[in-house]
Formats: sequence, structure tokens, C-alpha cells
Amino acid sequence: MRVGLVKNAERIPRTRKLIKLSVDFGDESRIVVAGIGDQYQPEDLMGKKMIFVVNLKPKNIAGVESQAMLIVAEEADGKVHLITVEDEVPLGSKVW
Amino acid sequence: MRVGLVKNAERIPRTRKLIKLSVDFGDESRIVVAGIGDQYQPEDLMGKKMIFVVNLKPKNIAGVESQAMLIVAEEADGKVHLITVEDEVPLGSKVW
Repeated sequence: MRVGLVKNAERIPRTRKLIKLSVDFGDESRIVVAGIGDQYQPEDLMGKKMIFVVNLKPKNIAGVESQAMLIVAEEADGKVHLITVEDEVPLGSKVW
Repeated sequence: MRVGLVKNAERIPRTRKLIKLSVDFGDESRIVVAGIGDQYQPEDLMGKKMIFVVNLKPKNIAGVESQAMLIVAEEADGKVHLITVEDEVPLGSKVW
């Protein structure tokens, strides 16, 4: 897992809860599809440093190639909480 | 991974950087050995909600059975940053 900064976030049209993120990991950028659009707006995610699983095979989700997975905390009832990392943590830092 | 609260933290004697944590996951408590005592004091960790890998085999570290692994962010030069979760996230919440 690595620390990435959400540089852009937009809903994927004709989906109920998919948000497409452009994430900066310092040495590279990746497109990430997150399925939390039922609980968060794209602007809630913009500018946040969060944690991503980066060693997965890219996956086509609703026509978009997702190149990492956003890590969140999820309550038993499905309520999702973002996990943000302090500003001082450099992009691309390893999380383990 | 799950969200846990550090209820107690103490150095493991005769080790350079091992700290023994007692972590509350809501429905259970676990002992966790973390190797960040060169950069953090036990009192830095006390009372913090953090993320733990809980599906590992228990591991004996310096004579203490560690029953989970603390997740932190690590810079390329080895500097470690804690990843804390907001107070409102219930103990035991799944992180994925």
C-alpha cells in the first residue's frame, strides 16, 4: 500500500456510486475507481492524502481501468469512513 | 485489517525499539508488538485509534506473542508516521 494524493475526483456517469479518482503517488499517477459515491461527494475526496493498494492487477470497472484500490474503514452497517494521512507524509510513502 | 484502540503501551525490556501494545478491537483485545520504539515513545501511542492487520499467525517477538500488526506509513529513509483513525470510527471496523 502507498500514500497518494487525490488530485481530481469525478462521478462516473450512469453509475450509482462510482467515483473516478486521479491519484498522485509522487513518482507516478494512477486512475482509481472507488465505490463510495453513495456516501461521499467527489469534492469530499479532492485534495485528500489517503492509502491505496497499488499491487493489484488493473481492473475494468464500468469502462474505466482502475489501477489501485482506495482503503477506507467500514462499519458493520456499511457506513464508510475515509482514512486520511497527515500532510507531512510524503507522497508514495509505503504503508505496511 | 481492523480499527483498534491502544489501551496500553510499554517498552519491552532489553530491546532497542520494541513496544508492546494492548489493543481493544471492541469484541476482543490483542497484544501487538510494534517495532517503532526508536521513533515513538509508548505514550505517543496510548489512546490512539489505528489500523491493525489481524489475520496473521501470532508471532513470538522477543518473548512476547504478537497477535496483530500495526500499520504505519514509512518514508523511503525509514521515517515512520502513525496513521490514526477519526474518533467516530467504531472499534473493530473493517479496513479494506
